Amino acid sequence: MQVNYINPVLDSLVNVLGTMAAMKVRPGKPSIKTEQSARGDVTGVMSMFGPAARGSIAITFTAPVILELAQRMLRETYPGINEMVVDLAGEITNMVIGGAKAKLEEQGHKFDMSLPTLVAGANHIVMHKTQGKTVIMPFETDYVSFFVELCFE
Amino acid sequence: MQVNYINPVLDSLVNVLGTMAAMKVRPGKPSIKTEQSARGDVTGVMSMFGPAARGSIAITFTAPVILELAQRMLRETYPGINEMVVDLAGEITNMVIGGAKAKLEEQGHKFDMSLPTLVAGANHIVMHKTQGKTVIMPFETDYVSFFVELCFE
Repeated sequence: MQVNYINPVLDSLVNVLGTMAAMKVRPGKPSIKTEQSARGDVTGVMSMFGPAARGSIAITFTAPVILELAQRMLRETYPGINEMVVDLAGEITNMVIGGAKAKLEEQGHKFDMSLPTLVAGANHIVMHKTQGKTVIMPFETDYVSFFVELCFE
Repeated sequence: MQVNYINPVLDSLVNVLGTMAAMKVRPGKPSIKTEQSARGDVTGVMSMFGPAARGSIAITFTAPVILELAQRMLRETYPGINEMVVDLAGEITNMVIGGAKAKLEEQGHKFDMSLPTLVAGANHIVMHKTQGKTVIMPFETDYVSFFVELCFE
């Protein structure tokens, strides 16, 4: 797990939510994941492949955060998570990873990206099957928190 | 979505569960997914990257199936889905995609594989963000059914 893969993802996330949704997010303290602690309601999963490393990244939204993002980005108020909301989580995942990929390429790391896979289900947990360590990053917003998990090997 | 990417995945799944767990599975009729109908309790998600196509594959296990597999493959009886069971789902996903990759390479399709990401949570649904279509394949066992979803573009 190379730490220089993490920051472009985090910067991109802050940038996407700031510019597309005017939502300020405060990155918390990253930690090595030792248990399946991040529970969420909608998760976007993407993989990155490069000659030097491969990794997977999961952005796990809690319902209050993604519903607020739907209101800000789609101008729609939904009572709960539906197909539109999941689709939005996929768009956000795409934009975040796309931004990170561009930044990593500037730094000389070339990556391909997978199609995002979305998972919806109340209170689910995400795990990564990797030899490497998984870093979990909490993000605080005014609408409770959400999580990004990254693993590279 | 090329249909010749599907069969190696399905053959590999039947082969892995047959040889590793002596579990016979009967592939059902594949269909183009139009709604988020496949609900499961543990899902393994992997991506494949090749020069001609990229795709994602999700194997969504229902609890009765993966708990029976745990009993057969780990010789353990678990009352519900725990970390060991999720890990087993990851191993199976790895083996299935690894077998499919080998078969696709024999056919001249070269692919890289991502690390699997596992999702656990009762009754969750999986969606794919792709321009291509998603094919959903039900599999019947003596312990109710489970699902494989594939999308390539």
